[in-house]
Amino acid sequence: MPEPHPRGPLHGVRVLDLTRVLAGPFCTLLLWELGAEVIKIERPGHGDDTRLFPPYQNGESVYFASVNRGKRSLALDLNAADDRATFEALAAQADVLVENFRPGTMEKLGYGADVIAQKFPALIFARISGFGQTGPYRDRPAYDLIVQALGGMMSINGPEGGPGVRLGISLADTGAGMFTAMAIMAALYERRASGKGRVIDMAMYDCQTMLLEASLVRYLATGETQAPTGSRHPVITPFDVFQTQDARIAIACANDDLFQKLSDAIDRPAWKTDDRYAGVFARYANHAALKHDIELALAGKPAAEWLRLLETAGVPCAPIHDMADVAADPQLNARGMFVEVNDPEMGVLKMPGAAFNISGYPRDPTRPPAPNLDEARADVLRQLGRAPEPQRERVKGAPRDPIW
Amino acid sequence: MPEPHPRGPLHGVRVLDLTRVLAGPFCTLLLWELGAEVIKIERPGHGDDTRLFPPYQNGESVYFASVNRGKRSLALDLNAADDRATFEALAAQADVLVENFRPGTMEKLGYGADVIAQKFPALIFARISGFGQTGPYRDRPAYDLIVQALGGMMSINGPEGGPGVRLGISLADTGAGMFTAMAIMAALYERRASGKGRVIDMAMYDCQTMLLEASLVRYLATGETQAPTGSRHPVITPFDVFQTQDARIAIACANDDLFQKLSDAIDRPAWKTDDRYAGVFARYANHAALKHDIELALAGKPAAEWLRLLETAGVPCAPIHDMADVAADPQLNARGMFVEVNDPEMGVLKMPGAAFNISGYPRDPTRPPAPNLDEARADVLRQLGRAPEPQRERVKGAPRDPIW
Repeated sequence: MPEPHPRGPLHGVRVLDLTRVLAGPFCTLLLWELGAEVIKIERPGHGDDTRLFPPYQNGESVYFASVNRGKRSLALDLNAADDRATFEALAAQADVLVENFRPGTMEKLGYGADVIAQKFPALIFARISGFGQTGPYRDRPAYDLIVQALGGMMSINGPEGGPGVRLGISLADTGAGMFTAMAIMAALYERRASGKGRVIDMAMYDCQTMLLEASLVRYLATGETQAPTGSRHPVITPFDVFQTQDARIAIACANDDLFQKLSDAIDRPAWKTDDRYAGVFARYANHAALKHDIELALAGKPAAEWLRLLETAGVPCAPIHDMADVAADPQLNARGMFVEVNDPEMGVLKMPGAAFNISGYPRDPTRPPAPNLDEARADVLRQLGRAPEPQRERVKGAPRDPIW
Repeated sequence: MPEPHPRGPLHGVRVLDLTRVLAGPFCTLLLWELGAEVIKIERPGHGDDTRLFPPYQNGESVYFASVNRGKRSLALDLNAADDRATFEALAAQADVLVENFRPGTMEKLGYGADVIAQKFPALIFARISGFGQTGPYRDRPAYDLIVQALGGMMSINGPEGGPGVRLGISLADTGAGMFTAMAIMAALYERRASGKGRVIDMAMYDCQTMLLEASLVRYLATGETQAPTGSRHPVITPFDVFQTQDARIAIACANDDLFQKLSDAIDRPAWKTDDRYAGVFARYANHAALKHDIELALAGKPAAEWLRLLETAGVPCAPIHDMADVAADPQLNARGMFVEVNDPEMGVLKMPGAAFNISGYPRDPTRPPAPNLDEARADVLRQLGRAPEPQRERVKGAPRDPIW
């Protein structure tokens, strides 16, 4: 059932979504935002665990509402014969099937990769797991924290001289969702010509490894293991956060020209010919002393005044904004990066929109709400040519026992 | 010139790549890894700035080598008539054009979005900039640090109680590359049916905003601005890093069952019925006391022993690995996540492969090297039906004056 007004270039693409929590649902959200239809298959009675994740608005999870907006929900017990028939009828009509169970779960349900590929040869079957469907860690439980610790991400993140800390975002999850969405779309592109499905075996662990980029590349080439460098660029100087009279600001001088502008703007023109600081290599060698000297120079005025002076001088700089600043940000608001959802139970919700911006598909300032559990039952059965049944459950995420 | 053996589902897709540094080149690397051909257009004499980025191997940039592997290089001066004719001939044959200049640069070259859309109506023209082609910040310089500071990412990353720090990876850049690759592939999928090109206007700032996920969603719903929580999950407890006798380990107990297993494994069975710790909400309310008590319990044994005990007990846990551990990791090696490049100048290089894993395209343990500047001149001119010319420059990135 393609929607009447295409939302994006993937209009007409039907995604059958068995995913829960974050990595998988973020993947199918990306596909939805690009125009696909997503039918979220949830276990009866309970649904996606994140229906119970805080924070709540009117008793419903805001977290669930943001990651699952626009999707449709159907509650199916994949161990029950009737529901299996429904699932298979939907799979026969779908373009993409996505799951993020632990490896082995789909096999136990009788829906391993071989079975799916044989029954539905045109289906793109994407699997997301912590460590992948193969290899010695295959059966390990994978939470974002575990992947960040084991996969090296923590070891390069945090203040200089201190122990590494987990990223402040769940990138092991969201990154995996992003890479999987890419693999799916590449397979969709190919399938338009070939008609052939593919099985995609993505691991949070693999995805995070690609995102380690420079730090891992450096180690593999030189054997140097990087420790956290705080906000400081490991090579370019000054490229860091600096304390002013009242708050910290970021300053990024990527070359000599910008450093000379900085020297003038903060009333240290002598630095332009100072052997310690004139030239990229000199600044790198003396980066600690330079940071100290810059903070001495900045101590006399508040952040707002320095930002004004530096901007006028053409020196890249920025305040350190928090979530409240981001929500009020003129650029993000001018670009339409926030959207509103009018949810029947929750009321009006504001949330970040999608980063995509494609001509012919202007950014919509609204989104449909996330679905109640099993909300699409009647519609989906009608599409399949079956007699409609009453919706099995009504509540979205009323705070019963949280499972986590 | 599609390659004889398809590397991935995007085989046959031709990408004309005007990008430099990281966000754009990471985007086109992703497309290359999925099977596309990428012709990297560089400015004569100098090429991509990152050809000079450290670290080096045999005088060539390892950084450049990893992000630009497999691509072809052509040096063109887009202000010179001859080279403009070559560029336009290539654009007429390409499926995708990507650029990440500052907004206004393509317009000054006479290649604004309107011109491109009119001359090449079937071309997908993707633009990546710091803040986007529209809005009040459009002309601001955007480095990863600036985007992370201004866009709120720093404010939620770092140790609990401390000031926020920049992520240890350049996610404002790589994230933008990933979202842009997705937008391009969605447009390619649509174009297979419609024949129509699109203009894609992506901003690092927008992309990062979507990756703030839970923290921003929480603020928008509740008005609570999150400060860094270190490695600790903001809600689930215990879900953090804990000191043992000799090193820290990550432990992730997402529910009561796992907490009970943990309590037994670390010889604190009384916690299972302790009012302070029995139950999700109790643990959340007493998370600081629980962390203290867990670290007391862990103090008597080294990390390796605890990890063995916890794994046996079924408690999700992990050591904090650094880059050396990652390079030696059995799972990543078993999955083929590292690849080798045999570069004529640099010798053998090991680097992370791509996270994609698609049936029919088994992971290749090797990659072709990144190109010398203008290396593809003769080939490209031949393809365009023109007389071959000698390559204009030979060196890849010999350490002349670094520009940063």
